[in-house]
Amino acid sequence: MVAALALFGEQGYQATTVSEIAERAGLTQRTFFRYFSDKREVLFGGSGELVRLWVEAVAAAPPEATPLAAVTAGLDPVAEMFRGRHDFARTRAAVIEANPELRERELIKLQNLAGAIGAALVERGVTVGAAVLAAQAGVTVFHVAFADWVRQEDPAAFRRLLDESLAELRSVTAG
Amino acid sequence: MVAALALFGEQGYQATTVSEIAERAGLTQRTFFRYFSDKREVLFGGSGELVRLWVEAVAAAPPEATPLAAVTAGLDPVAEMFRGRHDFARTRAAVIEANPELRERELIKLQNLAGAIGAALVERGVTVGAAVLAAQAGVTVFHVAFADWVRQEDPAAFRRLLDESLAELRSVTAG
Repeated sequence: MVAALALFGEQGYQATTVSEIAERAGLTQRTFFRYFSDKREVLFGGSGELVRLWVEAVAAAPPEATPLAAVTAGLDPVAEMFRGRHDFARTRAAVIEANPELRERELIKLQNLAGAIGAALVERGVTVGAAVLAAQAGVTVFHVAFADWVRQEDPAAFRRLLDESLAELRSVTAG
Repeated sequence: MVAALALFGEQGYQATTVSEIAERAGLTQRTFFRYFSDKREVLFGGSGELVRLWVEAVAAAPPEATPLAAVTAGLDPVAEMFRGRHDFARTRAAVIEANPELRERELIKLQNLAGAIGAALVERGVTVGAAVLAAQAGVTVFHVAFADWVRQEDPAAFRRLLDESLAELRSVTAG
């Protein structure tokens, strides 16, 4: 939904109406509402896909995988999901950064993601404490790498940044 | 503010007015508002003290402390802060659990805590990535231990539960 993002960037998220988004995108409002329940969905509609892909990867990890290994099994499909979305992600990040309500929404979506991954770990027989810690660690690794990715120019860097962020987590918590 | 918590428990958070809280506590509304800006403050007013104590401990950690060691320097003063507050914490947790808006507020407060700890680490010369990862890890350790603490009977267990949660984090992220 690049048209909507462009408008958010030009005139602010709050000030932009669905009618303006639809007009810019060459859609009727009715068509807009077929894809998005409201304008916030333009920004957060991808989170369902992110949760689904990550949870599936956790569930599909080999039975002998440690909790963190099961969590990081999600990094490949997640990086794949964001391939081709660098421009969108960068503009989206700027819109969210400019709006406290959207920043709160983003935090809550990340917590929901951690909750879903944690639940998938518990399904694997991991204790609740270890599941919460491993899921939150994975989501923080993702969050740090994502913030790095939208700040820099190379669209292909995301997978590498995820690995760097994971290595940094291991280094920070070692010893 | 046990009177307020009791009312939240009896009749629900949404349905309870400041006027009822003040009456139950034997206060005028004016006196209530001298201590709390609104009824939500009864639940979240302690978060400023928590942030302050933890950030001070991070800043005061020895210069050679690793990022996570600087973060975990906050666990002693934080455990000390919650001494004598077990009953309050348990009732508060039940009120928050029952209300989605309060659960979101709690998450945001925890994120603010992580942000403040991360900023204190950056002040110490830690890179932003390592600071975010270490701060979030510390807050998750706290969150897991806190959830365990309010679920069980022993008021004195919090410090031990913090250590167990930290050990579990190290175990989960090792290897």
